[in-house]
Amino acid sequence: MNFKAILYIIGFLLMLTGLFMLSSIIFSILYNGNDIPAFLISGIGTSIFGFILWLIYRKEKGSEIKKKEGYLIVTLGWLVMSIFGALPFVIHGAIPNYTDAFFETMSGFTTTGATILVDIEKLPAGLIFWRSLTQWLGGMGIIVLSIAILPLLGIGGMQLFIAEVPGPTKDKFHPRVRETAKRLWGIYVLLTIVEMLLLYVGGMTLFDSINHSLTTMATGGFSPNNASTAAYPSPFIQYVLILFMFLAGTNFTLHYFALHGKFDFLKTNNEFRFYGLFILVFAVVITIVHLPHVSFDIEESFRQSLFHVVSLVTTTGYVSSDYENWAPFSKIVFFVLLFIGGCSGSTGGSIKVIRHYVLYKNSLLELKRLIHPRAVIPIRVNNKALSSEIVINVQAFFLFYIMIFIFGSMALSLLGLNFDSALGAVATCLGNVGPGLGTVGPLSNFSQVPEIGKWILSFLMLLGRLELFTVLMLFTVSFWKE
Amino acid sequence: MNFKAILYIIGFLLMLTGLFMLSSIIFSILYNGNDIPAFLISGIGTSIFGFILWLIYRKEKGSEIKKKEGYLIVTLGWLVMSIFGALPFVIHGAIPNYTDAFFETMSGFTTTGATILVDIEKLPAGLIFWRSLTQWLGGMGIIVLSIAILPLLGIGGMQLFIAEVPGPTKDKFHPRVRETAKRLWGIYVLLTIVEMLLLYVGGMTLFDSINHSLTTMATGGFSPNNASTAAYPSPFIQYVLILFMFLAGTNFTLHYFALHGKFDFLKTNNEFRFYGLFILVFAVVITIVHLPHVSFDIEESFRQSLFHVVSLVTTTGYVSSDYENWAPFSKIVFFVLLFIGGCSGSTGGSIKVIRHYVLYKNSLLELKRLIHPRAVIPIRVNNKALSSEIVINVQAFFLFYIMIFIFGSMALSLLGLNFDSALGAVATCLGNVGPGLGTVGPLSNFSQVPEIGKWILSFLMLLGRLELFTVLMLFTVSFWKE
Repeated sequence: MNFKAILYIIGFLLMLTGLFMLSSIIFSILYNGNDIPAFLISGIGTSIFGFILWLIYRKEKGSEIKKKEGYLIVTLGWLVMSIFGALPFVIHGAIPNYTDAFFETMSGFTTTGATILVDIEKLPAGLIFWRSLTQWLGGMGIIVLSIAILPLLGIGGMQLFIAEVPGPTKDKFHPRVRETAKRLWGIYVLLTIVEMLLLYVGGMTLFDSINHSLTTMATGGFSPNNASTAAYPSPFIQYVLILFMFLAGTNFTLHYFALHGKFDFLKTNNEFRFYGLFILVFAVVITIVHLPHVSFDIEESFRQSLFHVVSLVTTTGYVSSDYENWAPFSKIVFFVLLFIGGCSGSTGGSIKVIRHYVLYKNSLLELKRLIHPRAVIPIRVNNKALSSEIVINVQAFFLFYIMIFIFGSMALSLLGLNFDSALGAVATCLGNVGPGLGTVGPLSNFSQVPEIGKWILSFLMLLGRLELFTVLMLFTVSFWKE
Repeated sequence: MNFKAILYIIGFLLMLTGLFMLSSIIFSILYNGNDIPAFLISGIGTSIFGFILWLIYRKEKGSEIKKKEGYLIVTLGWLVMSIFGALPFVIHGAIPNYTDAFFETMSGFTTTGATILVDIEKLPAGLIFWRSLTQWLGGMGIIVLSIAILPLLGIGGMQLFIAEVPGPTKDKFHPRVRETAKRLWGIYVLLTIVEMLLLYVGGMTLFDSINHSLTTMATGGFSPNNASTAAYPSPFIQYVLILFMFLAGTNFTLHYFALHGKFDFLKTNNEFRFYGLFILVFAVVITIVHLPHVSFDIEESFRQSLFHVVSLVTTTGYVSSDYENWAPFSKIVFFVLLFIGGCSGSTGGSIKVIRHYVLYKNSLLELKRLIHPRAVIPIRVNNKALSSEIVINVQAFFLFYIMIFIFGSMALSLLGLNFDSALGAVATCLGNVGPGLGTVGPLSNFSQVPEIGKWILSFLMLLGRLELFTVLMLFTVSFWKE
């Protein structure tokens, strides 16, 4: 294991983290906040610490990084950024308890959106911006991770992304990490700006527009408002949020093609079609089922249903009304949606649509295989046959996900959470969604979860965000054997 | 499709069903019950109907039966026996509503044990015996199905059974259906008699001993007492029940070897070892966790924990105390146990231990495969490498199971069941266990479930009992294509 090269990169990441902390001071100054010292101390401290690491190990620049180092860098990167990213909250005193601050920051960098803050609006503007920025940076990390790094590491179905680029344009898409990252980050920045402008035009304050667009594109779901997006009941704003949550949950390479006028994927990309259809079907079904239970008219009812389906499927986690009070059917549906996730190559978390698609299709084909045992019937995704290795890998991912969900729920119930709340808290943190059920439901927060529970949930956020394998790997014997 | 041959066999099964109904009259006579006419009418009617079918199609005896016919015979067999088996309850009037009677009988033949009866003890002895007998007959059907028929049909992991017979004795075990069935049925009858004697010696009434031993060996869980087995708090009786539930959840071929003095499987059979270890670990953990919450002493606490873990894992479903009032942790554990199931080749239902073992082991190996992508790392079960086809098939089974569970829960929540109850009802019926959570929990019953819900749950019992694929197959287009 080349630890020096790992520390070199971690040092570099910490330097960036510190600089981004310092950038939040703009909002401290604009809004006359009392959080300037907190940002100066933590920003400069973090940058210097990172700079020292970088300086010591700078000879390692360009040294070969193998797969194993890759796993470690990714996991440590997220971890270390959360450890340092929590400092402004603690130093300022807005979140005095370090556990809480770490939970909040991990929830940021993993784009989860679960919060321990009871009164968000009490925070100074700089801290609110930093909180939103952690999500936006996390989303940026996820794009490069899921499109450039994880396919190289061979993580659960991520190789599939490569197959997703439709035929004629295949050779025009450069798979080189740096180039890919740049292009997709450009799209990410562009979409963030467009959303911000639309929200502002729709009547949101500039500060809220900035924060919401940062956390929408990351499918994060942090809101500067205590009432989440329910603070803005305007249909225009809600439709803008729905659209951009949907876009954030879409594979960013598809945006790249769309921007270049290539729309073949609308016909050929199974994942995207499944994603769109799934959201539409559930939005309509929930509208129909819960219409008799609410006082909304049809348009508002559909909008609320669509909003929550998109918010949960994309793992954003904005809340526009208390869906726990809807029909029992909606509660089960919303719980199940915590396990869907966005498309591969999006900023969405959870299991992800492509895996569901592969599993669902394989199960149907299995019936055919039983009737014709001698025929070889492979799965085709985006017009490409998948090897049985990929299918087994995707299924192993699914099983790990369910197992972690079960053992996590057991652990939280041991800490005293009731049935609904334990299942909901684990599902929402592992899936990087945000709101859960019961005492951690859409109108509640995670402040009442016991201390150990917050550490467990923080770990689950990291696990889920890094596609399980990246982190689990580090706990195997074979990983550490040379 | 050779429908004539199918009807010939269905006719034969109905003749047997009718004769078994008539045999229940012994208890009607012994206990002076008013259910003699009900048994005479339904027993004779069913036998005659079966006889007519058998007579018309008797030329088909010995005609070739292919795979497709096999699937249809199995599904129709269970269905038709439940349709006719419900008659004594309706004709007598103990269960006046046909839906209820069908639910109860399907719950019998599928060895589920979910009941709509609020006051079981009000029933005449003959009907109580018939209710228990449906489970015992269902268990008999399952043994031959899972050991002789399903492996031939290639259903999800059932081929694994063949690999389970340990080395030196392999060639001594005749795989021929008739011979296998006879031997294992002999063991089934023997264990039932031994349990009956032990329960009787332990102080149970003769009638209750007979009924409980019939429903233990089938991992059914119907009890002639309203309080289920809690009516007998004797530790001896509870340990006898625990032992025989455990044996009923074990692969019957292992009993065969044990009776012949071959105990190699204790060392080599991964499924059996996993099954034993799993039960022990969870019984101990639950004892420790819920000890502070109850007034039991340590022995009683361990016995109650072990009783429920064995009862749920084997899918028997006896209840010896209200586990829903235990710590929240126990509630989640008991809910999860609904998805475990007995060993392959036992009378237990649900997903089954061998599948969990394969999935769990494959997931761990997947981590190894990611580190060494060029190495071929197969799963070994009982010292035999599994092909990727079997792994994919097992995983497809698991996914179907989860999908059916989710959509079933949604359907029941649409009918008004709350979150816990909907999840619990579907998990317990699909897994052929018996008690669920909430309004269908350990101290409740299914009488309050809406009519449509009872039909859905009956269908889920059949699906679960026939290893999903057998039934799902019939809904595919390729099945009906010649």
